Amino acid sequence: MSSIAPDPAELAPAWFWLLGADLARHAQHDASRIVQLATVRADGRPANRSLVFRHFASRGRLVFTSDMRSGKASELADRPWAEACWYFPDARVQWRLLGRCELSADPADAEIEKLRGKLWAELPPSTRATFLWPAPGGLRSPRKDFRVEATDTPPETFQLLVLDPEQVERLDLREAPHRRQRWEFGQGGWMPREINP
Amino acid sequence: MSSIAPDPAELAPAWFWLLGADLARHAQHDASRIVQLATVRADGRPANRSLVFRHFASRGRLVFTSDMRSGKASELADRPWAEACWYFPDARVQWRLLGRCELSADPADAEIEKLRGKLWAELPPSTRATFLWPAPGGLRSPRKDFRVEATDTPPETFQLLVLDPEQVERLDLREAPHRRQRWEFGQGGWMPREINP
Repeated sequence: MSSIAPDPAELAPAWFWLLGADLARHAQHDASRIVQLATVRADGRPANRSLVFRHFASRGRLVFTSDMRSGKASELADRPWAEACWYFPDARVQWRLLGRCELSADPADAEIEKLRGKLWAELPPSTRATFLWPAPGGLRSPRKDFRVEATDTPPETFQLLVLDPEQVERLDLREAPHRRQRWEFGQGGWMPREINP
Repeated sequence: MSSIAPDPAELAPAWFWLLGADLARHAQHDASRIVQLATVRADGRPANRSLVFRHFASRGRLVFTSDMRSGKASELADRPWAEACWYFPDARVQWRLLGRCELSADPADAEIEKLRGKLWAELPPSTRATFLWPAPGGLRSPRKDFRVEATDTPPETFQLLVLDPEQVERLDLREAPHRRQRWEFGQGGWMPREINP
């Protein structure tokens, strides 16, 4: 093997590249960045909402932004698991990514803390303002409370949600019979399997 | 009040009409019928997948189809709760519908049982065939096992998933500040509220 060949152990898992390829193919659609994130509520019932996928972090982690005061933030503080579901209608491809999901309130992760500053800087002023609005979920506040000026430094309410997948599935509905691939992370690293759709 | 005016108590809740209006506006997009349904796994972790919204039933219930052998079917048998999440990218509108969600294996519900026959009849042969394929989730079966001929009567594997919402939210991201409406079902019927986005 040539010395310039990368060490496979240092590469992100295979699903990471396939997901990146599916995303790249749909980059012209803004909607392709929208995923649904499922969590579990304090009372044991499921919760589900749409989020914008913002960035990849090392080891194929998925990064979203979240208001620290949101329902998902408190649900994840209690039970740090989520499954993201992505559907690309044109390609008829679905992705499911299940794993630990935590709010990046821990500034010890330098990579995530740096990304937090970068993502804040990239947000349009209208999105930044939402993190200074009255706390989400409460009874509607008067209009004047929404007139805020966003700062250049991210407020404490602005946090990253980091999903670290342990089980990933890709379902391709174009092929007949459908193709369903699953990757599971275990002691031996990522284990790929073909399973029945 | 004129005698032809409907009794408001017999009408479906307000959110039902608003959701219908959002769906009608997007009827030209096939993708508008795709929703993500969150459930809770046996181990307490969340699950999330895409489903095609098939039909409304009385009281604003949402009807999907499901293979009785699927993961969601066994999850719902164990914990009959789901939250559906809908996102209409063009309108920038999100719907969340939380409620009891059960597999219609009970033929005592005549409305649902009738709908089951109707939906089966409307499915294209390629979709009908999937209910006769090898059980989903197992190791990939040989190609020949997927060569099946669908029947005119629905097989037992073909069931309806019926979601009976108890809490519904509509989030409109076009308006600034965003508008978030919540309806909760309680002793006095459906209670609407405006809450902070």
